[in-house]
Amino acid sequence: MDDRSSTLTQPQNQDEDDEFGLPARLVGQALEAVEARDAVQLDELLDPLHPADIADLLEQIGPGQRRSLLALWRGGMDGDILSELDESLREEVIEGLAPGELAEAVRDLETDDVVDLVEDLDPAAQEAVLGALAAADRVAVEKALTYPEYSAGRLMQSEVVRAPHHWTVGEAIDFLRSGTLLPDQFYHVVLIDPRLKPVGYVTLGRILSARQETRLRDLTEESFRTFHVEDEQGDVAQAFNKYHLISAPVVDDDDRLVGVITIDDAMNVLDEEHEEDILRLAGVGDGALSDSVRETIRGRLPWLVVNLGTAGLAAFVISRFEGTIQALVALATLMPIVASMGGNAGTQSLTVAVRALATRDLTRSNAWRVIRREAAVGLLNGVVLATVLGGLTVLFFGSWALGAVIATALVVNLIAAALAGVFVPLLMERIGVDPALASGTFVTTVTDVVGFFSFLGLATLVLM
Amino acid sequence: MDDRSSTLTQPQNQDEDDEFGLPARLVGQALEAVEARDAVQLDELLDPLHPADIADLLEQIGPGQRRSLLALWRGGMDGDILSELDESLREEVIEGLAPGELAEAVRDLETDDVVDLVEDLDPAAQEAVLGALAAADRVAVEKALTYPEYSAGRLMQSEVVRAPHHWTVGEAIDFLRSGTLLPDQFYHVVLIDPRLKPVGYVTLGRILSARQETRLRDLTEESFRTFHVEDEQGDVAQAFNKYHLISAPVVDDDDRLVGVITIDDAMNVLDEEHEEDILRLAGVGDGALSDSVRETIRGRLPWLVVNLGTAGLAAFVISRFEGTIQALVALATLMPIVASMGGNAGTQSLTVAVRALATRDLTRSNAWRVIRREAAVGLLNGVVLATVLGGLTVLFFGSWALGAVIATALVVNLIAAALAGVFVPLLMERIGVDPALASGTFVTTVTDVVGFFSFLGLATLVLM
Repeated sequence: MDDRSSTLTQPQNQDEDDEFGLPARLVGQALEAVEARDAVQLDELLDPLHPADIADLLEQIGPGQRRSLLALWRGGMDGDILSELDESLREEVIEGLAPGELAEAVRDLETDDVVDLVEDLDPAAQEAVLGALAAADRVAVEKALTYPEYSAGRLMQSEVVRAPHHWTVGEAIDFLRSGTLLPDQFYHVVLIDPRLKPVGYVTLGRILSARQETRLRDLTEESFRTFHVEDEQGDVAQAFNKYHLISAPVVDDDDRLVGVITIDDAMNVLDEEHEEDILRLAGVGDGALSDSVRETIRGRLPWLVVNLGTAGLAAFVISRFEGTIQALVALATLMPIVASMGGNAGTQSLTVAVRALATRDLTRSNAWRVIRREAAVGLLNGVVLATVLGGLTVLFFGSWALGAVIATALVVNLIAAALAGVFVPLLMERIGVDPALASGTFVTTVTDVVGFFSFLGLATLVLM
Repeated sequence: MDDRSSTLTQPQNQDEDDEFGLPARLVGQALEAVEARDAVQLDELLDPLHPADIADLLEQIGPGQRRSLLALWRGGMDGDILSELDESLREEVIEGLAPGELAEAVRDLETDDVVDLVEDLDPAAQEAVLGALAAADRVAVEKALTYPEYSAGRLMQSEVVRAPHHWTVGEAIDFLRSGTLLPDQFYHVVLIDPRLKPVGYVTLGRILSARQETRLRDLTEESFRTFHVEDEQGDVAQAFNKYHLISAPVVDDDDRLVGVITIDDAMNVLDEEHEEDILRLAGVGDGALSDSVRETIRGRLPWLVVNLGTAGLAAFVISRFEGTIQALVALATLMPIVASMGGNAGTQSLTVAVRALATRDLTRSNAWRVIRREAAVGLLNGVVLATVLGGLTVLFFGSWALGAVIATALVVNLIAAALAGVFVPLLMERIGVDPALASGTFVTTVTDVVGFFSFLGLATLVLM
């Protein structure tokens, strides 16, 4: 730990934008110092910053500027900054460090931070970091890496403060004061039985305020729950949020205590899951703002290609009706409206469903209720909008038949949109694909095809 | 506090779906018990559940079922369940409670939970809850309600464990053991100066492990930072996540300590902000899964009406080219492709920008870099996709000129999409409108209009 942020309390009157975080002008000032090769000035600018803000700064500048800055900066990279850095930049930065610097940087990290740091590195960089650790830490990190990616085992720290469940408050206090090496931050003492199974936990507040002879097991919190090493991080994070957990023990197959997950790590996972959901829904892969142009294209182009395919499908549907359009070119003007309204309504249903699946609010027990509701909403929204659109069509094009056709097609498409918006993500979830990832494309394919087909098909039947 | 969840550790082998949370079959069983008017069975089913799971159950069933269940259930509503309930249901449930029941329910809540509970109630229901509180709590809640909505002042709890900064560890321990009423959960002791200004904080772990005569001020954490009562909750939550805070004191205009925000509340806010972002991006207002059909329509219909307007604008653009389409009906087949690709690419840029604004990663200092990157990505993606689409067009329609037209229009539209995707949310943010709320409509309007206009316009120039 360093004392970078010991200046405390953020400045009261920062620039216009943020109340907290990296001051905008600092980025420019740091780049000027780099430009002028003024190492003293750069140190003065960066030293007071929180590691998370230094990471932000590194993410906000270009790759060339980053290299120059790191070469000039004598304050040097430390493990906390590496932990905060976006994954896409870590490898780049780690490769630029001398082995000694790297060892220095990671030595003070908790094991869960080291795991987070190394799990996505290539084998050579990973070995470099592991080699820099103390033997005990290395064992803990290597053990954690044997658990599946995105599992509780990867998220937990192996440093746990634990006590036999028969201890008294006095015994616990003696133990805590005995000079045993304790984690930087801990909020509970986990009680274990003789077979190392966690059976409850006690907050430090209760230990501090209870009488010496009270048994720890009489002070346990009702919020106690354990996770298994292979539980998914997303489930763990949702459980922390739902049940207001602060920390929770992690057990192995034999129900033995092997680590503890704390809420700050769970909050981080929740944030990342959200990021993933929102970006995937938009077809952006795992894009980050610090990605290069090439990485950004790699993330987005595949989804645009998929969309090209589905748009081609919609175009094919239209092409079947070229004769009808030729006869009544107003159809070409109106048809994108039907498709666009369906796409929007489908995205609405889809987003609610994907979000509800992510928060575990949409389950098998209420799926039918939700589907019925969506269908009803689709029908009623469809009727309202169809009335408006049909009326406007009659007004502008002077044809009652055309108005009736577009109104009917719109109702049909809004019902299709509502159903596709719920069914598609439920189906994805069932077959084990992230609903956020692929659903959007399917839903808009449905609404495009149904929209064009119902409008042009009805027009052919009624108007030709 | 009740002991509902003292059965600890979740069942090891629940149904297929969730590792945690409300078991799916329980909803059906509870409804069967309600149907059979079997109060004993209902109690047996609900009593072991966590308040959050009971709230989930209430959210997953229909309004009629909810009324019957609450009428039958003798275990009764308590404050924890009310806190967990979705806002849209709270008023309904509170109205169904007798005044005595309500008083009973809210009495044990922390002040921040009461604030969260009452802030959205109508005045009569609010007064009913406030009237049920102890005098001191009522004062604290009414004070909190004077702060702006979504401010730190609303989020904080007024119960703070604090100590003069000159105290020693021994003095602090004596104080904590003196039987003073302590909050249910606390992790830090906040140090204050004689003017009540917080100057640092000490974790309970350090107090427990340090020597009696150590001064508290020598044990403070570097992570310490304070918030102002009027800071926005979203900023507070982002700061908790960014700086790994567990709790943080809140001060008033005179820098005096008035409360404390804990990470579980911050996590909740982060979750709600995400929910808001993702739902707003999709034009779903503040929709929840438990909303009735009428509420759902109220949330979604306005955005569909807006979309009807923008789709009408796009249709108007098309109508200007009806002569061209009449002459070459293949244009009607191909034009939705150009618009759809632009819409998708625009949504990609937009989502990354909205997300980056929400996490404060997109700031004035890197806006130009991001805009340049997006433009480059739009250009390059455009060139790749235009080559494919142009080639396919030549292949299917046998016209080099038509291929060149659609390829050019696609590149133009993808650049427009990339720029609109970043500029629109930046502009929204600048004028103080939530970028997630309105940007999507503007961006797709841009891509629709630019897509149709560039394709049909070029076709008119080149092919007519």
